Parts: sequence; C-alpha cells; structure tokens
Amino acid sequence: MNIAIVGLGAIGGSFAMGLTDAGYNNLYGIDIDEQTLISALNQGIIKKGVTRPETVLPDADIILLSLYPGQILPFVDQYKAFFKSGAVLTDVTGIKTTIIKELTAVLPETVDFVFAHPMRGSEKQGLEGADHTQFIGANALITPIQSNKEANIKLVEKLYKDIGFERITRVTPEKHDEQIAYVSQLMHVLSVAVVNSPQATAETPLFAGKSFQELTRIADINEDLWSELFSMNKEALLNSITSFEEQLDVFKHALLNNNEQELKDFLIHAKIQRRKWY
Amino acid sequence: MNIAIVGLGAIGGSFAMGLTDAGYNNLYGIDIDEQTLISALNQGIIKKGVTRPETVLPDADIILLSLYPGQILPFVDQYKAFFKSGAVLTDVTGIKTTIIKELTAVLPETVDFVFAHPMRGSEKQGLEGADHTQFIGANALITPIQSNKEANIKLVEKLYKDIGFERITRVTPEKHDEQIAYVSQLMHVLSVAVVNSPQATAETPLFAGKSFQELTRIADINEDLWSELFSMNKEALLNSITSFEEQLDVFKHALLNNNEQELKDFLIHAKIQRRKWY
Repeated sequence: MNIAIVGLGAIGGSFAMGLTDAGYNNLYGIDIDEQTLISALNQGIIKKGVTRPETVLPDADIILLSLYPGQILPFVDQYKAFFKSGAVLTDVTGIKTTIIKELTAVLPETVDFVFAHPMRGSEKQGLEGADHTQFIGANALITPIQSNKEANIKLVEKLYKDIGFERITRVTPEKHDEQIAYVSQLMHVLSVAVVNSPQATAETPLFAGKSFQELTRIADINEDLWSELFSMNKEALLNSITSFEEQLDVFKHALLNNNEQELKDFLIHAKIQRRKWY
Repeated sequence: MNIAIVGLGAIGGSFAMGLTDAGYNNLYGIDIDEQTLISALNQGIIKKGVTRPETVLPDADIILLSLYPGQILPFVDQYKAFFKSGAVLTDVTGIKTTIIKELTAVLPETVDFVFAHPMRGSEKQGLEGADHTQFIGANALITPIQSNKEANIKLVEKLYKDIGFERITRVTPEKHDEQIAYVSQLMHVLSVAVVNSPQATAETPLFAGKSFQELTRIADINEDLWSELFSMNKEALLNSITSFEEQLDVFKHALLNNNEQELKDFLIHAKIQRRKWY
C-alpha cells in the first residue's frame, strides 16, 4: 500500500514518522520545499520525496493532505487527473463543513475522500516541529459523508490507531465544527487575548505560575493557519465566544454584588464538571 | 531554628516536605485535624504535631501561616500573645494589600511579618495533595512592608531558595495584587467560565485536544479558597477582566468584518509576546 503525504510540516511530518514507526514503508513525501524532502529522507521517514505531485500520485493508494485549509481545494482541483482510481484521500483540517462543501463539488467519483481531524498538534511549525509521539493516546475525529465507503473509513481509522491515536469518533461535519469552535478555537482565542492584554509586560513571567504558562502556550500561534480556521468557522466560533462571555458575566455579576454563594456555586459547578471529564 | 507551619494542607504540607528535604529538622506542624498531623508525622515531614498552637508557638523562630486568607487575621489575633519575641511570621496568601492592612493593625511590635506568595500550587487539596517538587524552579513574590528588617526578608528568601524556588521578586503589595489579578486570578476565571459554558457536554472530551485539557485543569478549583481570593482582590480582578474583554472585542471585530489583516496582526502580536516570555 502506497501512501502519499502532501505537506511535510509539523502534522504531515508527524504522520510520516508515525506511519514509518508502525511499519508502513511505502511512503511518498510531497512538498514544495526541497530541503524538507531531503531532511525527511535523511530521517528515514519517507521512501521518496518529490516536489511534483504528478510523479507519485498515480501510484498512491492513500493520499493524506496535510495542507492549510485554503490549499486543499486548489490542490485537488489541480491534480485530480492524477489520482489513482479507487484511491482514498484524507485530510487533517480543523474545520469541516466548508471544506467538504468545496471538495465534493470538484472531486472525481473514482476516489473516496474520508475527512478526518487529528486532535493533537503543537505550537511548533515545520518538519522540525514534527513529533509523532504527540499522537499517542490522542483523539481523532472522522466526519463521514454519504459517498464514503465503510471500508475506506475503517482504513483511515486503522491508520490512526496504528500510529497511536486512542479514541476515533465519527461525527457529522456540523457537530464537528460546533464542538471544535468550543474545545479548540475558543481556547486559542482566549489565550491570544490574554497575551495581548495591556497588562502584559516584560516582567509578567516573574509573577506567573504554571497556569499562566500553560494557558498562554497556544498563543504562540501560526497566524496563517489559524486566521483561515477562524474565518472558515466564523459563525460557530462567534457562538462559542458568546456562550463563554455569558458565563464570564455570571461571574462578574456575582463578584460585583458580593454574592458569595453565587460565586461559590459558579466555582463548584466547574469543579464537578471538570472532574467528570478528566 | 524552630519553624512552625500552621495549616498542613497542600501548600503547608509541601513546605514541610521541602524544608525537611533541605535539612530543616525542627519543624512543628499545627493543624485542626489530628489525622493530618499523624499522617505528617508518619511521613517524617514534621518533628511534632499539635492541634493547640499555644503549645509550640513560644518556641517558634519562624511561623509560616498556610491558612485561607480569611483565617490569618483571626489566628494572629487569637495567638499573638504566644509569639516568641523576635519571631518572623510569613504567609502564603495569594492577595496582599487587604491582608497586610488587616494584619499590621493587630501585630505586636515584637515580631516581624514578611508577607510572601509562592507562585506554584496545584488543583489538589489537603496533605495528600502536597508535593514539594512542584516548588522546584518556581517563582515566589515577597511584598516587603516598611517595618520589615532586611535580615528577616533575606531569611524568608533563603527558605524559599533552599526548597527550590528559582526567582524570588520583591514588589509592592499593590503591584502584586494587580499582577496576580492578571496572571493568576484571570486564568482561573477564564478556565471556570469555559467549563461552565452551555456547550460543555459529557462528550466534550471526545473532541478535545491537549489545549482544552490544559486550559480547564484549574477549573477543578477550591471554591472556598478562591471565592475569598477573588473577593479580596475584587477591584484589580474586575480591571483585569475588562482589559481581557477589550482584547476579545478586537478579535471579534476583526472576525465579524472579515478583516484578514487585522486578524493576523492580532495573532502575530500574541506570538511575538509569548516568545519573549518563554
């Protein structure tokens, strides 16, 4: 089984490492940067590296697209004539409804696109930021569409399992986007807003404990990727921000009115919920 | 040198462990719970444990008060007659101006209170949640007052250094409270508000990556302690929330108006600031 990985950045590179580690040896790397391909070859995580997709796509049984959201449609549109009949495509994109709508309009019927989202990245960028061990024990989401063959969904699930993902959940694209707006996008927005507060100074770390360092980790953000993700999920994200702001208002109200019981109830509710989760 | 630790909870217990580990052997534990004292004795982290403070306070050269903010004044008021002349008192409280104002009004002139704040705790409670290794490499703050003797401030700094704290910064109580509202209290409020969002469901962890788990860790909160801390620092905390909300509005504005450049600039600003810090 030949697997082509398009985009050997932090996520694509981690997949290459993870798949190699799991015994998948026929891996092709496709990247616009030659140095990245050389580095991946030197690390032994791909069998062959090319800058011209058409040279390996006709042999690829699985095509894993690890591209920015806005690059997926142009890539598929440009190279769809080279896809092997029966090939399984899959992506790693953090938003789904928009991408799926765009893609299903141009995708040849001879291939099957199983849309997926590994729920573990890091603030690191590029192949040097790749580390497949981050996937071990992580969650992944698959958003099946009507045309997907069950065998192909299972194949993608197997790849994820083989490189260490623990829980792979199937959800609708709509539910995916709503939940991701909450558990991922909102976290990044909060972190960035904290760091951009006018209270931030060069001295801040002198005062900070572990929670500040943890909570601001993801403010070291890839602005090109995340501005696309936020924009493509605008409505769901704005809803998540509104729900969050309403809770912040409950807290402020209790504090302003010196309502000790209301304050404690608000904290107790969170404590109980958090303990149910982890 | 005899050290009395008042309150063998997660923080007091960690100090007992850290001081024992650093070779301080004359440690007295004072706690209202006999089982906690027995447990501390069994762990070998105190030399003697008492429920009645008056039995050991007259021999204590240093008295470390690891109590809830609202318990400090009553404790000092009730037991001040038993403080040894020349004793150094110190606390671990997360807010300073209110406490200092209360305390300086009742404190005998024969003792010196060096107000301090170890910037590392955890969501765990009680002696079973104590772990002095959390202090290694951590920050601490000291908020000297005019009556403090330099030698006593240095003594407290030495204790902190000896148990592993790395950076111990002296600041005014006002600056302490402003900065703590930002780097610590705001983080806890955000985390709690995220967890209390109506978007939270039993399924949430299936969708979540590392950032959600990290960011909600401190929502497992001690509501009795934190409602006191928030209330005692109300004004500074509300200011920090307002500054944060203004940044959130900048983001929302850029997203609503599809202003890609404004969105990216907002993210770039955070990335640069975060990288300067850590």
